[in-house]
Amino acid sequence: MEYTFSNRIQSVQSSVVRDILQLTQGKSIISFAGGLPAEEWFPMEAIRKVSNIVLKQSPKALQYGVTEGIMELREQLAKRMELHKKITVEPSMVMLTSGSQQTIDLMAKAFIDPGDVVLVENPTYLACLQVMKLYGAQVVGVQSDAEGMIPEDLAHKLDKYRPKMVYVVPTFSNPTGRVWSLARRQALLEQCRRTGTVIFEDDPYGELGFTNQQLPTLAALEGDAPDRLVVYTSTFSKLVAPGLRTGWVAADRRIIQMLARGKQSADLHSSVLDQLLLSELLRSDSFSLDDHVHKVSLIYKERMETMLTSLQQNEAWKGSQWNKPQGGMFLWLELPEGLDAEHLLRVAVQKGVAFVPGFPFYVEDCKRNTMRLNFSFASPDVIRTGMERLGEAIGEFTGRYADV
Amino acid sequence: MEYTFSNRIQSVQSSVVRDILQLTQGKSIISFAGGLPAEEWFPMEAIRKVSNIVLKQSPKALQYGVTEGIMELREQLAKRMELHKKITVEPSMVMLTSGSQQTIDLMAKAFIDPGDVVLVENPTYLACLQVMKLYGAQVVGVQSDAEGMIPEDLAHKLDKYRPKMVYVVPTFSNPTGRVWSLARRQALLEQCRRTGTVIFEDDPYGELGFTNQQLPTLAALEGDAPDRLVVYTSTFSKLVAPGLRTGWVAADRRIIQMLARGKQSADLHSSVLDQLLLSELLRSDSFSLDDHVHKVSLIYKERMETMLTSLQQNEAWKGSQWNKPQGGMFLWLELPEGLDAEHLLRVAVQKGVAFVPGFPFYVEDCKRNTMRLNFSFASPDVIRTGMERLGEAIGEFTGRYADV
Repeated sequence: MEYTFSNRIQSVQSSVVRDILQLTQGKSIISFAGGLPAEEWFPMEAIRKVSNIVLKQSPKALQYGVTEGIMELREQLAKRMELHKKITVEPSMVMLTSGSQQTIDLMAKAFIDPGDVVLVENPTYLACLQVMKLYGAQVVGVQSDAEGMIPEDLAHKLDKYRPKMVYVVPTFSNPTGRVWSLARRQALLEQCRRTGTVIFEDDPYGELGFTNQQLPTLAALEGDAPDRLVVYTSTFSKLVAPGLRTGWVAADRRIIQMLARGKQSADLHSSVLDQLLLSELLRSDSFSLDDHVHKVSLIYKERMETMLTSLQQNEAWKGSQWNKPQGGMFLWLELPEGLDAEHLLRVAVQKGVAFVPGFPFYVEDCKRNTMRLNFSFASPDVIRTGMERLGEAIGEFTGRYADV
Repeated sequence: MEYTFSNRIQSVQSSVVRDILQLTQGKSIISFAGGLPAEEWFPMEAIRKVSNIVLKQSPKALQYGVTEGIMELREQLAKRMELHKKITVEPSMVMLTSGSQQTIDLMAKAFIDPGDVVLVENPTYLACLQVMKLYGAQVVGVQSDAEGMIPEDLAHKLDKYRPKMVYVVPTFSNPTGRVWSLARRQALLEQCRRTGTVIFEDDPYGELGFTNQQLPTLAALEGDAPDRLVVYTSTFSKLVAPGLRTGWVAADRRIIQMLARGKQSADLHSSVLDQLLLSELLRSDSFSLDDHVHKVSLIYKERMETMLTSLQQNEAWKGSQWNKPQGGMFLWLELPEGLDAEHLLRVAVQKGVAFVPGFPFYVEDCKRNTMRLNFSFASPDVIRTGMERLGEAIGEFTGRYADV
């Protein structure tokens, strides 16, 4: 017999990232596909130590908890956002989630009725596109360049569509690694203030910068406004480790209340143990999150430069273009016009290397000659080997293409 | 300004359980309200030991994981279900979730289009009602008695509504503590086979029995059918500890695939660390989950008997009726006709004791004179004190009622 599933779930395509990861499972393929942090630098020993503290304290560590998360970690995050990001929030304006992905899901649940419009950069984070569509949103791209959304097109689309929200990743974006200029950040805020539109700022990579320059987040630029439009989200996945599934969202209390309603029905609350481990880690004398993040950023910078060097030194990439990321985890590459990165992927996987084609990140005007390369996961040596394989693949692929 | 939230989220009422828990926070109120396990019996030391093992092994413990959960724990659960419940499933038919609540959310996401009907017992688990309504389901109650759903009414409503699923808690149900008879279990299966309707069997309490009698789960009764209708879910929340947020669902692979799609967009996956801790715990020589569950069941039995004794010995409960639970965590009580348990709750909270009125568990034909008492959380001494306070409250309340 056939089971009768919901239209909603049948509309979801299994993500390309996921399919590729499954394709490469169990094989000795070098993957530049996922957005995985460098696991050999996870603070395993520090987390083991705090687990011994937490699990010797109260059994509350294993009991049901409140939906919004443990108050101590919410307080620590409020302080840290103030200190590092100049974002002023009370702990009651912070809710813990099971990572950024859940924050996106809860935002869609709390705001989107079928047919509502969400404005996004084009390309943008593909899992956000999937979630928004799953809740019936119409996702519309705003014209963007290297500095962010173009204000005129943004203004036009705010007026035309009256969207429920604008979703942006303004710092070291996924997939392009782009950083919005200050002027564009201000323009976005100004336009959304004019129309009273919620801005959903996704900032998982903001602390992973390779330079001293740090632009203010949209949440910091908005400041301590009475009716805040910016809903800010970030995650421990990129700062400490993703397996602990802990992210957070900071917003107006009325929004937090609705997100909490959604979360209560989704999973009651996130792992109390994981929250307590992170809280204890932030309090620990023998571990400094700031030092750790600084170290990890230097490691990622070296890996990014290794990847860049490989690209520059291989003739096969002639005619392709790429950015030089200032932070984050991703390099964005445009193959010569007419080439299709999905076809390249098929060749690449045979050579033993994987990446993600750019097309699923587009809402419209899809460029099939784009691809995203992750540089945070593999060590420099592995990156060199992987880039050799990818170089072979592109050489063979463009050669084959030239034959056709 | 006013934020414009989705109709969906605005339709959700904050749960009564939650409101009461908030009402009593920080006060020295004895709570029979929540469904909390006895935290003083959590295997803290065993979990601390396995955390030292897991966090000395691979950094994969803190890396992103697969949506369906770690394979090892899925294999262990498949074996354990076979051994304890005679449920035959392959590990690929098992998915890990962040607790039963998430399983319910994913089932609704995967099956419910707005207007679809879900059949339930009446009363039933209130958080299931909330989730189903949030996804736009029309929830319809099936007439039930102490043995479960009445087959004639079930057959009639299956034909009339062509529901997407039938949701049941056949063993030590929440809220009534009821256990379905074997005949009613078989009748449900037979009727749903006739109409090809999915049966969602929620079994969080099944192992917490107070007698030697164990009735087969619906999943076991269905056996190794080619197109399975039973979607079986249970959770470590009641067996080990809820703070680890780990539950599981066992079903036909095609259903698991859709649930995984929903989960991927909801939170990518559940905490890897928590899954590994549980897997290591199940493998541990120094901890036996079976012994632990047996011990906890004896503790709950004693607490239930303490509560029953308090009820029997206090004249103030004259005219009220209650069951003698054979397992689980809840006692279900009916006040004399015409009394409203929500009003009693107001008096009770002033006396320093809380419970949950029965009305929010009803889909229809709501009995406002019902209430649910949790006996698993408080120690026998605390239960006695709490029941004295509740006895005062009911005495005062019925006295006041008699005056009116």
